[in-house]
Amino acid sequence: MEIQKPYLLFLADAHDRLAAKVATGIRHWHPEYCVGQLRMEGCRVDCGLPDLDIAAARAMGAKTLVIGVANRGGVIADHWVEALRDALENGMDLAAGLHNRLSDVPVLKETADRLGRSLFDVRHTNAALPVGNGRKRVGKRLLPVGTDCSCGKMYTALAIEKAMLEQGKKATFRATGQTGILVSGAGISIDAVVADFIAGAVETLAPDNDPDHWDVIEGQGSLFHPSFAGVTLGLIHGAQPDALVLCHEPTRTAMRGVDYPLPGLAECMALNLQAARLTNPQARFAGISINSALMSGADALAYMAELETLYGLPVVDPFRQGVGRIIEQL
Amino acid sequence: MEIQKPYLLFLADAHDRLAAKVATGIRHWHPEYCVGQLRMEGCRVDCGLPDLDIAAARAMGAKTLVIGVANRGGVIADHWVEALRDALENGMDLAAGLHNRLSDVPVLKETADRLGRSLFDVRHTNAALPVGNGRKRVGKRLLPVGTDCSCGKMYTALAIEKAMLEQGKKATFRATGQTGILVSGAGISIDAVVADFIAGAVETLAPDNDPDHWDVIEGQGSLFHPSFAGVTLGLIHGAQPDALVLCHEPTRTAMRGVDYPLPGLAECMALNLQAARLTNPQARFAGISINSALMSGADALAYMAELETLYGLPVVDPFRQGVGRIIEQL
Repeated sequence: MEIQKPYLLFLADAHDRLAAKVATGIRHWHPEYCVGQLRMEGCRVDCGLPDLDIAAARAMGAKTLVIGVANRGGVIADHWVEALRDALENGMDLAAGLHNRLSDVPVLKETADRLGRSLFDVRHTNAALPVGNGRKRVGKRLLPVGTDCSCGKMYTALAIEKAMLEQGKKATFRATGQTGILVSGAGISIDAVVADFIAGAVETLAPDNDPDHWDVIEGQGSLFHPSFAGVTLGLIHGAQPDALVLCHEPTRTAMRGVDYPLPGLAECMALNLQAARLTNPQARFAGISINSALMSGADALAYMAELETLYGLPVVDPFRQGVGRIIEQL
Repeated sequence: MEIQKPYLLFLADAHDRLAAKVATGIRHWHPEYCVGQLRMEGCRVDCGLPDLDIAAARAMGAKTLVIGVANRGGVIADHWVEALRDALENGMDLAAGLHNRLSDVPVLKETADRLGRSLFDVRHTNAALPVGNGRKRVGKRLLPVGTDCSCGKMYTALAIEKAMLEQGKKATFRATGQTGILVSGAGISIDAVVADFIAGAVETLAPDNDPDHWDVIEGQGSLFHPSFAGVTLGLIHGAQPDALVLCHEPTRTAMRGVDYPLPGLAECMALNLQAARLTNPQARFAGISINSALMSGADALAYMAELETLYGLPVVDPFRQGVGRIIEQL
């Protein structure tokens, strides 16, 4: 799945930045992908891009309108459809990561079919995927793993890719979830593949490469999350990571969405390492990434210093300190 | 998914018992489900049931024709279609666990729709499944886990259900794969669900029950198999087993289909126990089930005696000794 760039970011009538997190993510990580933003009446979010209508965006070369917002329920709202159809009529493809599919909206399907446009529903994959084979691939791979879901794995991976590229190293972010796919323009939403193919999907996503190239694979879930750990284990096995980075949000008191405590960091690292070593006996931890957004700067620094002493690994908040010290470990 | 009984077993033109393993499995575990068998010219397998044509089977009450064979590729052969349509026309449903779907054969789909018959493609589920919630359910659950795929987990589970029912205990086999579904008439093929729903599918399959009721859940894969371990982990978490049974085939030198060694039994039990205790801290091993079909009787007994000493658990081959000693542990 490769989405054509550049993009026009559709902010619709989003009320806050959380609702527009896909758009803000693309703007933050890949401003060069974005020619502008399209906002409807009532929109209260600004990505800091030029406000363009569809004709103007097309004139500036926009190839895809990306739905950068999620409303309650994550559905395509009826009052968005006119703008989406207009984008198709003006020669753009559409991309979205919502629960329902662009291709399930009859007028969009019919218009796209008639004009030969593509509708990218990145949550869903139609690719014929292989079963994982476990064979060692050429090239290096890094995978963030987490104590929980939604604790900073995608941010960490994107920060590592960006810093490595800035240092002139060979690195490619490999998206495994819908936001990561829309941010990077390619990938497979592995929580949406058929269970038998989780590991095989990741093997396909991060194939053989140059010996000094790093695939920086987006992590998903947690081996300790009772809803999603199967996805995480298949991802680890398919990734066959050389380097793991533990991601953790220290203020959280329960696993996301369930009444379960978070695992201890040592226990979490031990189990992830055991899983990773099945398909790559050389796997090791290269660092710990802390999402300290809800802590004071002083508290965060003290906490991270303590972890460094305990685990003998670089501990950073990618947002506050960057990931340079983790990259030194690779 | 609940398939109407009794069945007419369709053996088609199967050349050997392996090709007819679904039919022989149903016949072995549930002879009371079977009114007869339907064999085409060239069939060399006999399940020991009356040979019936479709009209005769219908007259004896058959409600479903079950495709009990898999040819090379696991597809619905063109020369079977006439018999399958005839079954629909005579008032039977169809059930199959092949790769391609009954509903993808136009004449079968059209005939079933016209007559209001059901086509059960048990590899595929259309059910809307929930994400796992990890909440402790009432009732007891047993799950066989394996050092590898295809080492006796389904056989062990069916043997335990049967023996418990014969002892007047409350037990239900819960099928998680296509053969188990066809043998028992119900279940969810969990390797075919979307990855996010593995644990939730198993929670749905083995819901709250009487406090003294045992769900005997069919195991799948192995935590040490690089292709399928994600399915296994989600299954373990969703099952929240009180009792685990380790299944092992001692003569195997590599994991099925890949170039990986089998794990050691102690290592395998430790990792499965750690996984199970996430959703059920009371989980423990109740025994070891050895598939010794390829060993001599004397070798098998010596090997099992050695394991009993090492692990302090009952060790049986369900086919040779039955599973009574495992049930005593529950």
